[in-house]
Amino acid sequence: MTEVTIVGGSGYTGGELIRLLQKHPNVEIKNITSRQYDKTPVNKIHPHIQGSELVFKDINTDKIDSDIIFTATPHGASMNIVPELLETGGKVIDLSGDYRFRDISTYEKWYGIEHVSPMDAVYGLPEIYREEIKKADLVANPGCFPTGAILANLPLSQNNLVDNIIIDSKTGVSGGGVNTNQVFHYPNCADNVIAYKIISHRHGPEIQQELGEYSNVKVSFTPHLVPVIRGIFTTSHSFLNNLVDENIDYTKDIDATKNIDYSKNIDDAKNDIINLYKKQYKNEQFVKILDDGETPNLNSVRGSNFAHIGGFEIDENGRLVVISVIDNLVKGASGQAIQNMNIMCGFKEKTAIDSYGIRP
Amino acid sequence: MTEVTIVGGSGYTGGELIRLLQKHPNVEIKNITSRQYDKTPVNKIHPHIQGSELVFKDINTDKIDSDIIFTATPHGASMNIVPELLETGGKVIDLSGDYRFRDISTYEKWYGIEHVSPMDAVYGLPEIYREEIKKADLVANPGCFPTGAILANLPLSQNNLVDNIIIDSKTGVSGGGVNTNQVFHYPNCADNVIAYKIISHRHGPEIQQELGEYSNVKVSFTPHLVPVIRGIFTTSHSFLNNLVDENIDYTKDIDATKNIDYSKNIDDAKNDIINLYKKQYKNEQFVKILDDGETPNLNSVRGSNFAHIGGFEIDENGRLVVISVIDNLVKGASGQAIQNMNIMCGFKEKTAIDSYGIRP
Amino acid sequence: MTEVTIVGGSGYTGGELIRLLQKHPNVEIKNITSRQYDKTPVNKIHPHIQGSELVFKDINTDKIDSDIIFTATPHGASMNIVPELLETGGKVIDLSGDYRFRDISTYEKWYGIEHVSPMDAVYGLPEIYREEIKKADLVANPGCFPTGAILANLPLSQNNLVDNIIIDSKTGVSGGGVNTNQVFHYPNCADNVIAYKIISHRHGPEIQQELGEYSNVKVSFTPHLVPVIRGIFTTSHSFLNNLVDENIDYTKDIDATKNIDYSKNIDDAKNDIINLYKKQYKNEQFVKILDDGETPNLNSVRGSNFAHIGGFEIDENGRLVVISVIDNLVKGASGQAIQNMNIMCGFKEKTAIDSYGIRP
Amino acid sequence: MTEVTIVGGSGYTGGELIRLLQKHPNVEIKNITSRQYDKTPVNKIHPHIQGSELVFKDINTDKIDSDIIFTATPHGASMNIVPELLETGGKVIDLSGDYRFRDISTYEKWYGIEHVSPMDAVYGLPEIYREEIKKADLVANPGCFPTGAILANLPLSQNNLVDNIIIDSKTGVSGGGVNTNQVFHYPNCADNVIAYKIISHRHGPEIQQELGEYSNVKVSFTPHLVPVIRGIFTTSHSFLNNLVDENIDYTKDIDATKNIDYSKNIDDAKNDIINLYKKQYKNEQFVKILDDGETPNLNSVRGSNFAHIGGFEIDENGRLVVISVIDNLVKGASGQAIQNMNIMCGFKEKTAIDSYGIRP
Repeated sequence: MTEVTIVGGSGYTGGELIRLLQKHPNVEIKNITSRQYDKTPVNKIHPHIQGSELVFKDINTDKIDSDIIFTATPHGASMNIVPELLETGGKVIDLSGDYRFRDISTYEKWYGIEHVSPMDAVYGLPEIYREEIKKADLVANPGCFPTGAILANLPLSQNNLVDNIIIDSKTGVSGGGVNTNQVFHYPNCADNVIAYKIISHRHGPEIQQELGEYSNVKVSFTPHLVPVIRGIFTTSHSFLNNLVDENIDYTKDIDATKNIDYSKNIDDAKNDIINLYKKQYKNEQFVKILDDGETPNLNSVRGSNFAHIGGFEIDENGRLVVISVIDNLVKGASGQAIQNMNIMCGFKEKTAIDSYGIRP
Repeated sequence: MTEVTIVGGSGYTGGELIRLLQKHPNVEIKNITSRQYDKTPVNKIHPHIQGSELVFKDINTDKIDSDIIFTATPHGASMNIVPELLETGGKVIDLSGDYRFRDISTYEKWYGIEHVSPMDAVYGLPEIYREEIKKADLVANPGCFPTGAILANLPLSQNNLVDNIIIDSKTGVSGGGVNTNQVFHYPNCADNVIAYKIISHRHGPEIQQELGEYSNVKVSFTPHLVPVIRGIFTTSHSFLNNLVDENIDYTKDIDATKNIDYSKNIDDAKNDIINLYKKQYKNEQFVKILDDGETPNLNSVRGSNFAHIGGFEIDENGRLVVISVIDNLVKGASGQAIQNMNIMCGFKEKTAIDSYGIRP
Repeated sequence: MTEVTIVGGSGYTGGELIRLLQKHPNVEIKNITSRQYDKTPVNKIHPHIQGSELVFKDINTDKIDSDIIFTATPHGASMNIVPELLETGGKVIDLSGDYRFRDISTYEKWYGIEHVSPMDAVYGLPEIYREEIKKADLVANPGCFPTGAILANLPLSQNNLVDNIIIDSKTGVSGGGVNTNQVFHYPNCADNVIAYKIISHRHGPEIQQELGEYSNVKVSFTPHLVPVIRGIFTTSHSFLNNLVDENIDYTKDIDATKNIDYSKNIDDAKNDIINLYKKQYKNEQFVKILDDGETPNLNSVRGSNFAHIGGFEIDENGRLVVISVIDNLVKGASGQAIQNMNIMCGFKEKTAIDSYGIRP
Repeated sequence: MTEVTIVGGSGYTGGELIRLLQKHPNVEIKNITSRQYDKTPVNKIHPHIQGSELVFKDINTDKIDSDIIFTATPHGASMNIVPELLETGGKVIDLSGDYRFRDISTYEKWYGIEHVSPMDAVYGLPEIYREEIKKADLVANPGCFPTGAILANLPLSQNNLVDNIIIDSKTGVSGGGVNTNQVFHYPNCADNVIAYKIISHRHGPEIQQELGEYSNVKVSFTPHLVPVIRGIFTTSHSFLNNLVDENIDYTKDIDATKNIDYSKNIDDAKNDIINLYKKQYKNEQFVKILDDGETPNLNSVRGSNFAHIGGFEIDENGRLVVISVIDNLVKGASGQAIQNMNIMCGFKEKTAIDSYGIRP
């Protein structure tokens, strides 16, 4: 049995880790830490985990003795404990933003704090970094918006098809965490739509970092809060550099398209794009490319680790729309963390996270 | 492998059967029938079942050759096919109301139609009829409201503690099924509460049938529609026949209380009631009795087969409140149907249905 | 122009007073006080009041010089300022619970605090106390649950038709006020139903006080939180003392029914009940009795001062169901406060509060 | 008294016209037509209009004898009756799409039907066409998305500041009308986000028509359905042609900026943009430009005729975000229709439509 510890288990991502790990055949939850709820049964805080014997503990970092340690701690807190956790010999999967940036100054600029313990980590998006994750001791689990946005746009950047991407995301309220504030007060956010951090959300540079690896694409990101509990619906708008005529096969030699004349044949381009995405993700168990004419529904992935991508349409102005949906707490957080654990431990990658979404 | 057929798989209960059975290690889905969607891939109708190869088929009843047949058909339709399905040699679990009533005239009165094929069936509530279900060829899966209401009140009736029970239920909208109507139109039922069939809902006599087996208790039932997708929250109000003094132990000799003087000691009575419930359900995996002071949350059972019961309080007028929550599509329909299948087939009763709820 | 001051204007009831009073032709808002938001424009806190020049002020109680003073302050706070406010010569309409109880010990028991300034006040439910309100200097504006529950049951108590009433109320979340807490956090209360203070809500004794004036009826009250922004849906269950035979006319001599044999004729009784309610409220502009067969919709009164009452049904057990709906912030708070002001000032009672609800 | 007729009064826009006109001091509703509900009291279909004596009538078009006729009929239906209605001598305000397009072929392409009675109409957006509306006999009331999108982008087009605009709109479900379908079924669209007609919504060319009047701007439009009853939240993304250095005053000579070098000073540009908007709408009663740092809330305009515009931010890529919010049934339909009527009849423009929104 692989022993795991969840550091900071009283929030939503902690709750999801517990819910999912309880069904994992190769794993035993050894500790769930919480300073605030020390000695409290887990089901008093997570009342859906009824019947479990788990109890929160307040234990010192250096006393944690587990194979895998999930740090479901806020950004700024993780960097204070991760080095010590690694010294215990366990491998760490950090769900905060503290280790996601390869350029430490980007982190410090956008998070507004000094990083006290920078170190190398693997960015935990298996669809890009699976091989690196296998060997990693420290995985930085991606942010929720970045997971949906990167998956939706990776083929566009890798094949140099667009120069600018406008990412208009709509998130459920659980993305804001378990702590209350005026924005997340039910009478405020029910029957409402709210844009926030319109140009200043720190998931913007995280998306930029990953998509900018392959081309000079510039990412513009704006998140919205919608009256949904879980899920991120990401609408990506971008203008195709070149619309392709029928003699070009996008799926084969896509880089060559850069200097081709604008085409009249939008339908062909659309099919090429769809095929490009299907090719990119054909071996990915958790990324589903929908057929032409289908648009993803947020509620199709509720509670699941799947990402659905679809809605590929190109309008008369050459704008391409690509839409992705994920559950922010699963593929956007705890499910992906378990996916990373499965890869790191050599388990079947889908173990404990392959349930379909709860719909309706 | 046990082969199963789902007759009428395009609705919500059909979708839930598919979702849950896909993870069942002992079962293979052989057919999912639908006249309307013949030859359509299942994921076109249930877009969360993305990646499955299942396809709807329109097959004749007598061609169905399966060990277990779930009839997720409307009331009035089931009775036309169940006899023929039983003749194929398969065992039938009927999710409609057609076989739930032991007195056929009650069915005909409340459903307003003549029953064309009355026959003996076992009422599929495992917490009462587990032994009968083991041997049954035809199980009538309970209604959603009755499941929550009977579990919440069974100890009261079996121990003759109350004469009248007022059941004020609040249901999510998925209980109305996948077909549209003006009531379930989003702009109508969002941000709204609606009472319907205030004294005339046909789940009333179904509750009465089961609770009335043990005493002369009279059930008064009123359902409400609340802006929730899934779940039934049942508030039961009843006046205790006798409030117990401290010399009486409710958990031991409860029938004897009938002629005891009203007590001053409401707290003792409350504790006795809680203990009575804990004793009643102590071997039930899917019924959780909450501790004193805890009230069930509907969202703790979302997507799960669990029933939580709690909220035991007695006010100065001697009114007892008992609250139960279930997911109407799982414990109230498809999950319970699979629980019945597990019992009928000798599988572990919890197989494929023991996931915790999705919260938040 | 009548000058008014709103003490404590930053919460929901303050916002509603401002919204409604801005359209009142006879009234000028002189002050809106707030300690926290001193000198802040009102539209920074109430962003729907866009374009208004109003600004919050932090002014001493004794400096308030207005004809009418609304105290939209929490219970426990009002009693500290009301005596001084009355000394300024203004009339006070208090929206807290501090002056609603005729028996001060009931207040102190249920609110858990000592009352520092008990004094006579008129209970501000115009449908009962209109004549007293006309002459009052201090009006205690009723609670939101009591407004809906008393209107729904007043004829039953006044005519001695029932001994016990079970009031099962479903409230929108704005009833909890503008301050955040874990219960009202969107991810917790969306898609959920929660019962709270199952037998211990302090609106229970307030309902009991008013309905108990006319008979020995005993009130049992349980509130529920539903995912609705505004509105209280009250389901009242009671067993009719006597079901009437056709020789009795409920609308004429209802007290005489007390000793009549149970009747078979439920339909006649139902009609009698409906007529009784229509008679009771026939001169009330804000109480609408629905026709036989109609049930109130919560969304029909959203944003309005109306109460709709309907759903009159009697089941085979003799249980009568009566349903009322109000907007908790309007008829249940600020709208009713303005209705009281209109009565106290001799304005037309409906001025500024006769808009229909916003539906859908 | 001005007499008005509402043709097709049983839908949501009909209901809003009734709700608002009931408080109009200069207007009497003479007829509300409905073929389906002939002789039915209005409050049976619009239960919030409780207490009114209005009754639906099925009357022939040529029998309508009113000063103002609102046609709240579906597109395709209006063009069959408007010519005859104009012959009665009444002025017509058409809420359908039938008369919104100056180029009839655009209408026929996007609506997919032949126009049987093309004629000149004034596009009823008072913020552009007030003078023309004063003299019009036929006003084409704008679509809901176009109202929000045009108001949010008019200054950008008129001052030639951008070449492309991406309009990502989020609408409440009432925009889909009162008729049911699978998409608007509560269990489907609650807790969900849905993109639809991603590049093919017919409000796209309507927005293009109006914004394209002043520059060569190209509009790309994608609507989303969010779980909100009322309201349209429009996020406009566009890349500024030139970011201005501090020597240029956007509010004075904005056309001259076209050939200016990109600037470093984003803050100045932002302030210029805000001032430009404030100048544009300074005499408009129903358009409120929010201060720097404020973003519009959808729920601030619920039930009101106001449009709030704000959120002006420019990111490092030169992308400008502008956000507008309206209530789709009021400023986006019936409220704007009454605003047009007020202008046509010489009433104060704000009569009967100047209530603040219902918040929370």
